[in-house]
Amino acid sequence: MRALRKTRAAPGAELLDVPVPSPGPGEVLVRVRGASICGTDLHILEWNEWAAARIHRVPLTFGHELAGIVEASGPEVHHLEPGTFVAAETHIACGYCRTCRTGRSHICENLRILGVDTDGAFAAFVVIPAANAWVVGEGVDPDAASVMEPFGNAVHAVVGTEGGGDVEASDVVVVGCGPIGLFALAIARAAGASRVIGIEPNEFRRDLAKRMGADLVIDPSSDDPVAAVLEATKGHGAPVVVEMSGNASAIDQGTRMLARGGRMSLLGLPDGPVPLDLNDQVIFKEARLLGITGREMFRTWQQTQTLLASGMVDVGPVITHRFELDRFEEAFDVLRSGRSGKVILFPGEGTI
Amino acid sequence: MRALRKTRAAPGAELLDVPVPSPGPGEVLVRVRGASICGTDLHILEWNEWAAARIHRVPLTFGHELAGIVEASGPEVHHLEPGTFVAAETHIACGYCRTCRTGRSHICENLRILGVDTDGAFAAFVVIPAANAWVVGEGVDPDAASVMEPFGNAVHAVVGTEGGGDVEASDVVVVGCGPIGLFALAIARAAGASRVIGIEPNEFRRDLAKRMGADLVIDPSSDDPVAAVLEATKGHGAPVVVEMSGNASAIDQGTRMLARGGRMSLLGLPDGPVPLDLNDQVIFKEARLLGITGREMFRTWQQTQTLLASGMVDVGPVITHRFELDRFEEAFDVLRSGRSGKVILFPGEGTI
Amino acid sequence: MRALRKTRAAPGAELLDVPVPSPGPGEVLVRVRGASICGTDLHILEWNEWAAARIHRVPLTFGHELAGIVEASGPEVHHLEPGTFVAAETHIACGYCRTCRTGRSHICENLRILGVDTDGAFAAFVVIPAANAWVVGEGVDPDAASVMEPFGNAVHAVVGTEGGGDVEASDVVVVGCGPIGLFALAIARAAGASRVIGIEPNEFRRDLAKRMGADLVIDPSSDDPVAAVLEATKGHGAPVVVEMSGNASAIDQGTRMLARGGRMSLLGLPDGPVPLDLNDQVIFKEARLLGITGREMFRTWQQTQTLLASGMVDVGPVITHRFELDRFEEAFDVLRSGRSGKVILFPGEGTI
Amino acid sequence: MRALRKTRAAPGAELLDVPVPSPGPGEVLVRVRGASICGTDLHILEWNEWAAARIHRVPLTFGHELAGIVEASGPEVHHLEPGTFVAAETHIACGYCRTCRTGRSHICENLRILGVDTDGAFAAFVVIPAANAWVVGEGVDPDAASVMEPFGNAVHAVVGTEGGGDVEASDVVVVGCGPIGLFALAIARAAGASRVIGIEPNEFRRDLAKRMGADLVIDPSSDDPVAAVLEATKGHGAPVVVEMSGNASAIDQGTRMLARGGRMSLLGLPDGPVPLDLNDQVIFKEARLLGITGREMFRTWQQTQTLLASGMVDVGPVITHRFELDRFEEAFDVLRSGRSGKVILFPGEGTI
Repeated sequence: MRALRKTRAAPGAELLDVPVPSPGPGEVLVRVRGASICGTDLHILEWNEWAAARIHRVPLTFGHELAGIVEASGPEVHHLEPGTFVAAETHIACGYCRTCRTGRSHICENLRILGVDTDGAFAAFVVIPAANAWVVGEGVDPDAASVMEPFGNAVHAVVGTEGGGDVEASDVVVVGCGPIGLFALAIARAAGASRVIGIEPNEFRRDLAKRMGADLVIDPSSDDPVAAVLEATKGHGAPVVVEMSGNASAIDQGTRMLARGGRMSLLGLPDGPVPLDLNDQVIFKEARLLGITGREMFRTWQQTQTLLASGMVDVGPVITHRFELDRFEEAFDVLRSGRSGKVILFPGEGTI
Repeated sequence: MRALRKTRAAPGAELLDVPVPSPGPGEVLVRVRGASICGTDLHILEWNEWAAARIHRVPLTFGHELAGIVEASGPEVHHLEPGTFVAAETHIACGYCRTCRTGRSHICENLRILGVDTDGAFAAFVVIPAANAWVVGEGVDPDAASVMEPFGNAVHAVVGTEGGGDVEASDVVVVGCGPIGLFALAIARAAGASRVIGIEPNEFRRDLAKRMGADLVIDPSSDDPVAAVLEATKGHGAPVVVEMSGNASAIDQGTRMLARGGRMSLLGLPDGPVPLDLNDQVIFKEARLLGITGREMFRTWQQTQTLLASGMVDVGPVITHRFELDRFEEAFDVLRSGRSGKVILFPGEGTI
Repeated sequence: MRALRKTRAAPGAELLDVPVPSPGPGEVLVRVRGASICGTDLHILEWNEWAAARIHRVPLTFGHELAGIVEASGPEVHHLEPGTFVAAETHIACGYCRTCRTGRSHICENLRILGVDTDGAFAAFVVIPAANAWVVGEGVDPDAASVMEPFGNAVHAVVGTEGGGDVEASDVVVVGCGPIGLFALAIARAAGASRVIGIEPNEFRRDLAKRMGADLVIDPSSDDPVAAVLEATKGHGAPVVVEMSGNASAIDQGTRMLARGGRMSLLGLPDGPVPLDLNDQVIFKEARLLGITGREMFRTWQQTQTLLASGMVDVGPVITHRFELDRFEEAFDVLRSGRSGKVILFPGEGTI
Repeated sequence: MRALRKTRAAPGAELLDVPVPSPGPGEVLVRVRGASICGTDLHILEWNEWAAARIHRVPLTFGHELAGIVEASGPEVHHLEPGTFVAAETHIACGYCRTCRTGRSHICENLRILGVDTDGAFAAFVVIPAANAWVVGEGVDPDAASVMEPFGNAVHAVVGTEGGGDVEASDVVVVGCGPIGLFALAIARAAGASRVIGIEPNEFRRDLAKRMGADLVIDPSSDDPVAAVLEATKGHGAPVVVEMSGNASAIDQGTRMLARGGRMSLLGLPDGPVPLDLNDQVIFKEARLLGITGREMFRTWQQTQTLLASGMVDVGPVITHRFELDRFEEAFDVLRSGRSGKVILFPGEGTI
């Protein structure tokens, strides 16, 4: 089969013919229908500092956001028939550590990541644990199914267990309107936010933010986002801030636009330590800063399924580009250009 | 001034001329713009068993759902200027009991109710504690302001502190589509419910339920509502049931249509003890039954303000009738007919 | 091996020699060290109405509260070595239903119960799913390990996810001081309750209640328990009531001794529908009634392990009797006498 | 009366004779029985950078932790009789801002602090709002009543609304064992923590930490506290960390000793921005960082009352010194020495 592979611990990747992998115990082989590109995949391609430190396995097929058809099962697989259309949870949990046993597998102590620690989805076929296959229910568009994983990140950040219940009738700010931020805007709107505010320096993405339902979109390169949010909230600040940028300065600003007693969910990954004004922005305000990673397994997927299948959220505008896998270089170029939302790669012949 | 008074502990009421009351310490005099009729007011008018047992004060001006203009203040009132347009919280809390001191004034141990324990709002003027005045913010229609109190009941039941966070992307059933149930349907829709289901035997109200956003409206006089909800939810039951009917049989049915782990909020007041199948419908399902009364002071009012001012909910269709106070008999007749939603009385001259 | 079997759908049970069972895929064979008797086991022995309706499988080895040594594994078992000392979770979850997938396996839609739907633990060996084996950590007395399952019921009822956080510095009432109620008293004490009150008509159990740390023990056959709790709480009622009796009248009383805004967890199983005064005891008080069954898998087990291993709770006084399996009739007689706490059966030779 | 006053915006303070203040509307005059010294008071005395920036009112009587007898009431005071023994909440809330109206007065948008923005308690008499007077219930030692305010800080940090329910059967680390940290250790112990670990460089305070119930006390000047906590928790980290030091390095360490999914409450005030490793210590672990200030009004006081009156916590060992107000210089010297816990000043004649 064709697979996009890192063959060396260095920038670049190659499209190669490799054997179709075999599912082991508890695993299934999935024929990939579509696999979308994550910012992480770009880091892996370009072999940045993070990738060099994190990737321990080369050669490696990368890519982890996918939907496809179960083609075959390994031993020890029950309740998942070939032919089923599934999306993949990419956090591969051990199932037996303390965290897994207490219902929080997504922060498993022995966590492995699909397409980072195992061969991934930029290929005609991928092997995933059966436990990681989410059966895509009726009503979800097949392309939307390819982005359920990053969409789930946004669901978890906006209405996850810890933060749930504070969105209804509240103003919600999303800092950073890349694809997950764009999803978050629409999810906050669907979950009953009174107003949804996006902050994003990239004009292309600001336009998408409006299409995804933002009431107000702030360009932090021209306007002070803290002042703009305080003005929009009559000085109170926003009860909910969802941080998707990973930019240290934006994170600091996020704390400053947060209302007293507010909740800030942190998902974007900064490059290094982030200095925070804990006194005035966290302690005296009794702010809550919540780390967010992955998706609650599988409460978040149930919510994701419902939001997409019911039509409460339409991810259509965010999926801006589609390429056959062979044209992966163009796809990554588009991603790098900043003039894109989600980009999906299709490994099949003529499946676009 | 003109006031609708109970003059005897017996059915009936009289429209009388009485002196304008004087606000005492901590109280304000409000010029009533509109006062809507609650089911409780009908009980008081008809002097049913509940009213006979509960009302300890005759003569009494009744009516408690109101909005109006602050006309004058008694001593010890700060931060509330004459001329301010306010709605009234009707739970008059003592402020010093254990419950009040721990932030739950709406279930004060010494609770008094406006229009039940004190003279109420079916009059040109009413005196309320300044602490019970909610300053109606911009964007709320004056008639909608008159129904903020019962609307707040519905807000508290659907997205109150205890239940909040389970509505988003969930199916929500509202049992009983009187005015508060109708509000609840729209609030659940605005708060991100995936589907909203109403149960109501009265055809007029079923039509209103559809106008307020119900996806499905079940007539329990012709269809088994438990079977209908289970069918609509593929056998899982609904994660959230909001009980507004106070009908013992409907409450029992509510528990049977509740999903495992579901939450049922109880607001409707039954006539007597209600037999419940605790084993199968509560314990084995780990259901949560939450008593709901009044409104969280004043978190619920903040949410109410936002939902109404932002346009997330339009209560217009529920306000079906408007009468001058002099025509109170017609107003109560309309209420009794079952062919009405909220009915507002206007005591002023020419203010309709 | 020797096994205590129901051979007919009728009262009684026989101690028979049967083949040692073989673990299937995902299952382990456990050599039973001790198995304690649950009230349910007495119902099964006596074949009461509930048993006749619920047990679909005869012959059946019953018994479900156990600890023992993993003897052998079936295929598809990982991470559980022979020789490991384990206790058994008795809720056998399917793992793939909506409830399981959203982290609430203990209320699985396809739930089966060990010793009820499968052969149980009153035998030298028992087969359980590997997923149901809790590895008993250091510091837990082997006899205490046999009662971790019912102890876990009490943990879940007192400090489970829904109720957690309201016990510290609060008065806690436990209604019904059978073994699970006795555990609950000690758990509430360990979890920071300011006062712990037990209600129990049986004198033997009232004495045990005092030994388990109750500050006050009320005999409802001589004193009005509602009046007694209200007096002890200066009229406020108790913020937390844990219902372990399953007695309809006691459940009703439980609601009446509950403080405004209080939480009542229901675990005891009543015989039929229970009439509740929802108006005054639930709605106007904003009480929360929480159904409780089984144990959160496996958060509750983690807490159970800690409470027992740390010495925060000593279950010693509750384990009043120990018998070899051959003397099961005496054991059940002791249970029936009401002069016992937990009774453990030991199937092994000379292991007592 | 005698009062310890800042007379100039500079280091130092003077004991002066000043008129007894008069309570205004809604205020009471309290005859101070004892007033304990807070670290803040030392900053005010020494006029450090924070004090110079924060204190806008000189001359000023400082001191804010107090208990005493209501001597007289101003107008508009109800439900508080002269002769009542009270402790003082020091957060003076406006009562009408958005935060106050939604039940979070302790983070009022117009917050003023007793002894900082108003004349305080290092005097024979102090005026406080009647709403800020907590009637000290039976069973609280009068000296303990003087420290209810800082004790309440610790209660709020350990078992406040946001964090409640995660302490039972969990390991709790308290970073910084000054008086509030020492209280926190004992509160965590009383609230059902399985183990309580203190971190403190000062030997005198480490000894006190042991007396207050710490199972393990770590000296960060000789041992790596992160390694020590990880070792004590078998590598999992602690589910709850309570930060009382305000030391930037210790805050960073706190995040590193926190378990996956753990909760860290921040109360200690750092000198400047604190760099945090958000990726590995917050986001990937899904840690929750909670700002903590003041006390929930008055839920925390209710808990404080119960913990002290029931004997669950004995603050005796923490109150290490008592001085008459005239000897304030000695008192501050003791505080500066680091060889003290709480130091109480007594303004009365012969009341020690």
